[in-house]
Amino acid sequence: MTDADAHKKNMQDLQAKQRAKVAEAEDPERGLVLVHTGNGKGKSSSAFGVVVRALGWRKSVGVVQFIKGSWITGERQFFDRLGGVDWHTMGEGFTWDTQDRERDIAAAKAAFKRAREMMESGDLDLVVLDEINIALRYDYLSAQEVLDGLKARSDRTSVILTGRDALPEICEYADLVTEMTEVKHPYNAGIKAQRGLDF
Amino acid sequence: MTDADAHKKNMQDLQAKQRAKVAEAEDPERGLVLVHTGNGKGKSSSAFGVVVRALGWRKSVGVVQFIKGSWITGERQFFDRLGGVDWHTMGEGFTWDTQDRERDIAAAKAAFKRAREMMESGDLDLVVLDEINIALRYDYLSAQEVLDGLKARSDRTSVILTGRDALPEICEYADLVTEMTEVKHPYNAGIKAQRGLDF
Repeated sequence: MTDADAHKKNMQDLQAKQRAKVAEAEDPERGLVLVHTGNGKGKSSSAFGVVVRALGWRKSVGVVQFIKGSWITGERQFFDRLGGVDWHTMGEGFTWDTQDRERDIAAAKAAFKRAREMMESGDLDLVVLDEINIALRYDYLSAQEVLDGLKARSDRTSVILTGRDALPEICEYADLVTEMTEVKHPYNAGIKAQRGLDF
Repeated sequence: MTDADAHKKNMQDLQAKQRAKVAEAEDPERGLVLVHTGNGKGKSSSAFGVVVRALGWRKSVGVVQFIKGSWITGERQFFDRLGGVDWHTMGEGFTWDTQDRERDIAAAKAAFKRAREMMESGDLDLVVLDEINIALRYDYLSAQEVLDGLKARSDRTSVILTGRDALPEICEYADLVTEMTEVKHPYNAGIKAQRGLDF
């Protein structure tokens, strides 16, 4: 067999496998719950990449940003200008900026109330709960109330939860958990966070 | 010390650490090279999330998609409608659809030629080479020619390379390597790839 033939054979096998996998798979009865966690980058940015995908298919999207309140980010400017995304940003910035636990809790609860409305409304195909895992980690929200909210979502609504240290209870309930791991990071090499890359 | 005081103290320490980290960090002299690899999801979607960030800051962006040619994806529809992104899609689909190694190689070389032009032009702040790691893995492109292209990039241009099985030579050169790991995947649970989530 020539190299070209061997390649063709390999690819035919791969195609057959791929088709079998697709044929076996079923459409879920309801929107999926995805968790992006880990200490690496890409947790929020891949959620915003999925927002773009969803919008590309003319689906409707909501975003609630926990924690990152006072930051001006590229994604927020982009979607503000674009319009059409139901966007809610919580509170007043990272927790180390506010230093007031009660105020943080109140802001997280208010943001999650908005998130619940979005998930239950039946108007949205995708809801991103950006950095909610941080709010859970600091006990600003309980795993139980977040699970209750996820379970009460409309059947059409998929939800992405981002942030490091996702709680096991949330991962257990999720359909998909992806861990982003930092293999090599420019901060370690002493490079500043970059506009348009890191935020 | 009350709980609230303890929290405040913790957050002050965290804030001080964070500020020290930012103060120590330097701006890089040139655009960064980022690799998104691993067997998990989020490699391409986080690149598109970074595209959104960059556009949010009114930066200019180019995308070359290796491999995914014939797929209609949400991201492609979104950025087509949006306009303003220099977009090039290679070839005729996944390798298991073409089954013709010579044609795949020619398509990959042509796509990388376009990528080199984008990286060297000095017109772009960010260039995404989507799924290029797959083209490298199949030897459609050599590590050396891709490294040469990255090294010849304009100082202003950051580059993101996506796809599983990134070559060690590429990771070695990169400023940031993130590995996306599949912890729990709906395909495993027999759920079909979803429009607006998976593509």
